[in-house]
Amino acid sequence: MTSREFRVGLLGHGTVGSAFAKLLPEQAERVERITGLRPSLTGILTRGQGSFDELLESSELIVELLGGIEPAHEYVLRAMRSGRHVVTANKQLLSRHGEELWEVARSEGVQLRFEGAVAGVVPVIRVLQESLAGARVDRVHGIVNGTTNFILTEMARTGETFGQALQEAQRLGYAEADPTDDVNGSDAAAKMAILARLAFDTPVHIDQVIYEGIEHIQPDDLEYARELGLGLKLIGTAERIDGGLSVRVHPAFLYPGHPLASVGGPFNAVTVESEDITEITMSGPGAGGPQTASAVLGDVISAMIPPASTPAAAHRLEIVEDVVSAFYLHLEVADQPGVLAQVAQVLSSHGVSVKSVVQKGLGDQARLVMVVHPVLESRFAAAMTEIAALDHVLRAPPRAIRVLEEEFG
Amino acid sequence: MTSREFRVGLLGHGTVGSAFAKLLPEQAERVERITGLRPSLTGILTRGQGSFDELLESSELIVELLGGIEPAHEYVLRAMRSGRHVVTANKQLLSRHGEELWEVARSEGVQLRFEGAVAGVVPVIRVLQESLAGARVDRVHGIVNGTTNFILTEMARTGETFGQALQEAQRLGYAEADPTDDVNGSDAAAKMAILARLAFDTPVHIDQVIYEGIEHIQPDDLEYARELGLGLKLIGTAERIDGGLSVRVHPAFLYPGHPLASVGGPFNAVTVESEDITEITMSGPGAGGPQTASAVLGDVISAMIPPASTPAAAHRLEIVEDVVSAFYLHLEVADQPGVLAQVAQVLSSHGVSVKSVVQKGLGDQARLVMVVHPVLESRFAAAMTEIAALDHVLRAPPRAIRVLEEEFG
Repeated sequence: MTSREFRVGLLGHGTVGSAFAKLLPEQAERVERITGLRPSLTGILTRGQGSFDELLESSELIVELLGGIEPAHEYVLRAMRSGRHVVTANKQLLSRHGEELWEVARSEGVQLRFEGAVAGVVPVIRVLQESLAGARVDRVHGIVNGTTNFILTEMARTGETFGQALQEAQRLGYAEADPTDDVNGSDAAAKMAILARLAFDTPVHIDQVIYEGIEHIQPDDLEYARELGLGLKLIGTAERIDGGLSVRVHPAFLYPGHPLASVGGPFNAVTVESEDITEITMSGPGAGGPQTASAVLGDVISAMIPPASTPAAAHRLEIVEDVVSAFYLHLEVADQPGVLAQVAQVLSSHGVSVKSVVQKGLGDQARLVMVVHPVLESRFAAAMTEIAALDHVLRAPPRAIRVLEEEFG
Repeated sequence: MTSREFRVGLLGHGTVGSAFAKLLPEQAERVERITGLRPSLTGILTRGQGSFDELLESSELIVELLGGIEPAHEYVLRAMRSGRHVVTANKQLLSRHGEELWEVARSEGVQLRFEGAVAGVVPVIRVLQESLAGARVDRVHGIVNGTTNFILTEMARTGETFGQALQEAQRLGYAEADPTDDVNGSDAAAKMAILARLAFDTPVHIDQVIYEGIEHIQPDDLEYARELGLGLKLIGTAERIDGGLSVRVHPAFLYPGHPLASVGGPFNAVTVESEDITEITMSGPGAGGPQTASAVLGDVISAMIPPASTPAAAHRLEIVEDVVSAFYLHLEVADQPGVLAQVAQVLSSHGVSVKSVVQKGLGDQARLVMVVHPVLESRFAAAMTEIAALDHVLRAPPRAIRVLEEEFG
C-alpha cells in the first residue's frame, strides 16, 4: 500500500528531543502499519536555529520538547490555533498555563497530549484521562521524581549522606549539574499539580502545591527507619479532604506492604485510589531520553488515528514450545551415602547445573532441595524422568517448579 | 445544556453485568460532562429473557457480559455488522475468535474494546494498544488470575494445603464453586493469548498456550522457597524467543526484587518489557464485579468520544493546606531522667499521641526516636516548636518526617 505521509514538526533537541528524532524514523514502519500513515519529521527547531512559522506551515502535528515557559507557551498556543495537534512533555508549562492551553485545545478541536510530562513512560496521564474516566478518584500517591528516589535508595543502601548520594546520582546521569528543582521537590510539585487536575477535575496551579525536598534527610533517619520496618520515599499526594483538595510533596516513610515501598532507584510509580476500583499502581522508568520519547511517540500515534482499533496481525511468529528455565527441585530421599552424588550425576549428564542446595532432616524424612541454573526445559524434563526412576533412593515423586531468574529494578 | 442521549444495550446480568447496570446510571452525569452525551441503558438481555434484535435496534453500543462462546459470539458479530461499537469482557471469546472479531471491527469501522477481559481494572489492554503502540515489546509477564494468587498468598502465609486455601478463597468469594479453569491455569492462558496477540501483533489462539496450574503445589515447597528467599506466583509469560513467540502459564518462584513479587492476595499485575523503555508494571484488583464494570465503563466512554481531550474543570475544590499525618520524630537528647517525660508532656498537650518509641545510646549520644499517630499537621508543628525550645535537654535540632500510615493489599 502507498500510504500518505504524516508530517511532524519537532521543537527542541535536548535529551528527549534528540531521542525522539531518532525513534520516529526507526519506528515509522510500525506506526504506518498501525495508523495507515507514515510519520516523518519536517524539521527541528532549537532555541538557536530555525523558523517556527516555516515549521508550523509544513507540519500536521507539533511535538514540543523545548521545556521552560517561553517560547514553548507561545508556540504551543499558535500551533493549536492553527489547527495542529500538539504533543508536549513540558510539566512546567502545564502546571502554570494548563487551563488556558486545555481551553484552546477544546475550542480549536485539536488534541493536546502530554503523557511524557509526568512519570516518563508510566502511562498515568492516559489512565486518568481514559481508563478511569468513569471512576471517582479519592487519592493519587506518586513517586514522580526519579532523581530523589535514586538518592534515597542509595542512602538507604549504602549509609551515605545526601551529598554523597547526590554526587553518585550526578555521576550516573540521574541528576543534573544543577539538581535544585529535583531535590527541593518543585519538579515533583509541578507533576502533582497536573495529576491532581486530571484526577479531580479542578484547576491546580503549581503555586498551590505544598512541597518539601530531601536535602535535610540524614543517614541515621534511614537507619532508625529500617529498625521500625519503614522505607523512605519522596511522595506526592493529591487527595480529597473535607470536600476540598490537598496537593503536596514531601518525604514520607512507608510500611513494607505499601504498593510504592518496593519502587527503587530511578523508577517512578503512581497509585490511584478510588472506592469503585480499590487501587491501580503503575511503575516504570520515570525519565531518560528514550523512555520519555517513547511516551511522546505513543501520544503522536494516538493523535494520528481514530480511537484504538486492533490492527491486523503483522506477523505469524512461530510458537516456541521448548524454552530455557531455572528450576527448584524437591526430592524426598533415603538418607544414605551417595544419594546427592547420584542425583547430581543425572543432572549433569543432561547439562543441568546446580546453583544451590539445601539438605534437610534425617532418615526417612530427609529432603534434598535445590535450585538449578537456567536450562532448556526438555533437558530438565529428561533429567527428571531419570531421577524419578531412582526409586530405590526416593521416598516420593520428585517435584519441580520454575524459578524466574532475573533480578530487577 | 440539554445534551443528547447515548443508548447502551447490555447483554448479561451476572456479577459484572449487574455491577455495570448499577454503575452506568450512577456515573451518567460525570460521563455527560466528559463526553457531552448522556448514557442510558436501553435494556438488559439475559440468557433467559429479552430479544437481541430489539435491543440492537434501540442501542448505539452493545456491552457484552454474557461470557462463554455462544450466543456471545453471534451477538458481537451481529452488533458490529450493524455498525454498533462493542465493549466486551469475554476472554474466552477473544482468545478463540479474536482474529475474526477484530477483522470485522476493522472492516465495519466500529470499535471493539475489551479492557475488562484481562486483569480487571488494570489498564493493560489500553497501555499495550495505545501507550506502547510505538514500542517493540520483548516480553510480557503477568499475574492474571486473582483466585490462584490469593490461594498461593494464603498457602505461604498460613502453611495451609492447596485444598484448605481453596476453601478459604471460596468462602471469601475469590473462587467460584467450580474453580477448575482458575486453578488449572486455563483462565490465565486465555488472558495471555490476548496479551500476546496485542504485544506481538501475531495471532495467538488459546490452544497454543502451554499451561500448568497450581493444584500440585505443596505447603513445604513454599516453606523451602522462603528459606531460599523466593516467593511463588502463577506467572503468565509471552516473549520473543529465537525469532518466535513463547506463550505459557505456570507456577514460578520469584526473587524479592522482581516487580511482581510483592503482588499479593487477589491482585493482578502485568509487567511489559521493551528495550526502548526498560519496563512498565501495572497492578490492581484483577476481578470483582465493580472493578471489571469500571474497566467496561472506561471503554464505553472511550467509544463515545473523539480521542481524549482534557474536559473543562468541573469543580473548583478548595485547596486544603492543613492535613492529618503521622510522623517519625528524631531527637538527640541529654541522657538524663525525665527527658522522655518532658517530650511526651509537650506532645500530649498538643494532642499528639505516641505510637512507638526507640531509645538509643547513652550520654551525649542518646537518641529518642518515635513514631506518633496521625494528627493535624498544624498541631504537630506547634508541638515541634515547643520541643525545639527545650534546648537544655536537646543536643541538636529535632527532626520530623511524615509516615504513611495505611496498610495495603
